[in-house]
Amino acid sequence: MTEHHTVKAFDSDLQELARLVAEMGGLAERQVADAVDALARRDTALAQRVTAADAQIDALQREIEEKSVLTIARRQPVASDLREVVGALRLAGDLERIGDLAKNIAKRVIALNGEFPPPKLIRGVEHMTALLLGQLKAVLNAYARRSVAEAMSVWRGDEEIDAVCTSVFRELLTYMMEDPRNITFCIHLLFCAKNIERMGDHATNIAETVHYIVEGKPIADQRPKGDTTTLADLRKAGEV
Amino acid sequence: MTEHHTVKAFDSDLQELARLVAEMGGLAERQVADAVDALARRDTALAQRVTAADAQIDALQREIEEKSVLTIARRQPVASDLREVVGALRLAGDLERIGDLAKNIAKRVIALNGEFPPPKLIRGVEHMTALLLGQLKAVLNAYARRSVAEAMSVWRGDEEIDAVCTSVFRELLTYMMEDPRNITFCIHLLFCAKNIERMGDHATNIAETVHYIVEGKPIADQRPKGDTTTLADLRKAGEV
Repeated sequence: MTEHHTVKAFDSDLQELARLVAEMGGLAERQVADAVDALARRDTALAQRVTAADAQIDALQREIEEKSVLTIARRQPVASDLREVVGALRLAGDLERIGDLAKNIAKRVIALNGEFPPPKLIRGVEHMTALLLGQLKAVLNAYARRSVAEAMSVWRGDEEIDAVCTSVFRELLTYMMEDPRNITFCIHLLFCAKNIERMGDHATNIAETVHYIVEGKPIADQRPKGDTTTLADLRKAGEV
Repeated sequence: MTEHHTVKAFDSDLQELARLVAEMGGLAERQVADAVDALARRDTALAQRVTAADAQIDALQREIEEKSVLTIARRQPVASDLREVVGALRLAGDLERIGDLAKNIAKRVIALNGEFPPPKLIRGVEHMTALLLGQLKAVLNAYARRSVAEAMSVWRGDEEIDAVCTSVFRELLTYMMEDPRNITFCIHLLFCAKNIERMGDHATNIAETVHYIVEGKPIADQRPKGDTTTLADLRKAGEV
């Protein structure tokens, strides 16, 4: 009877943790979408709301940390139960970083106030964001369903975001070279694009954590991505 | 006797955790110093070693995570003992991020292969790095001595790094506007400078964690920093 009671209490701890992670994931998705909407629509007020809302994500991370620690101390879980708890901790870390990066985009929108990058340039960033949001949604679903297959598909999909990022970088570089007056806002857009690329890396981390929770071991393959926009492609684009 | 034994075992767990954090901190310091040395001396081989060595930092983070979880499950610590363990987890997270950012600088050195930014421009990044390494050393000492006073001094010192970063950004923008051929390597240097600024944020987080471990509550003041280089200053510089 006592054992049964403990098991039920532990299950409810785990459900609560998973619920908090899902809530944090939903918030992170919204922050990313809002930050890039604010960029596309030059909506400084929305950007300010995004900046302010980041504190909620940080608070959720602390709550997940506290609940995880309490659960480990009270229930002393092992094997897959322990991985559930450690997984929640890791996921909260990645979602917090995604929130931070969205906040950084929002800050740039505020800084850009008065400057008007051509919509064409912003469309590249929007395209990256659409891909990223698809990845984020898919990986949060993979977590909700504890589906390794779905997680692996996200894990492999990160290359597409990187490829679009490289082409956005090229376009921005060309623009900067054409006219020095474009340089300032292009740098803001470069950092925005880089932020979204980094969010993609965190979505990949989340996919790896889902794999770890279910399978209990890391993914065997080499990570599919090369951090291309920092590297040769940028130089190549610069040489055009 | 049993209790005494348990206490000793717990102390040794905590010492081991603190030792691992110190080791990780030392590695992160070296990675940052090596990455920027590689940049200053155009030493691609060193940059490649930095890129490869990042895996050690990641492995240490996992080890700290595992040991923390085991310690919480076995000893069920409360109050300051629990904060020691949770603190180690948080510190490992920030040190891992610092390692990642150092790796990103190293990757840029490899990408810059063949391009030669003027030493004058790199000196700004080196200046930031010297400040950052001072902060990192101080905050790791603050952790080793559990000194809130030392941690608070690091926490307040972050503004100086941000100020130098702003002036580096200005200098790089001027350079980019003078000649479009400078744009590519200047962007790499912008990202390097931004990475070091972010490392400063992580040093600030570490200071906050030391405060939390010792005092059991967050720092009351507002965080001293404004993320200036992303904001108005960049625009101002762009308008020159």
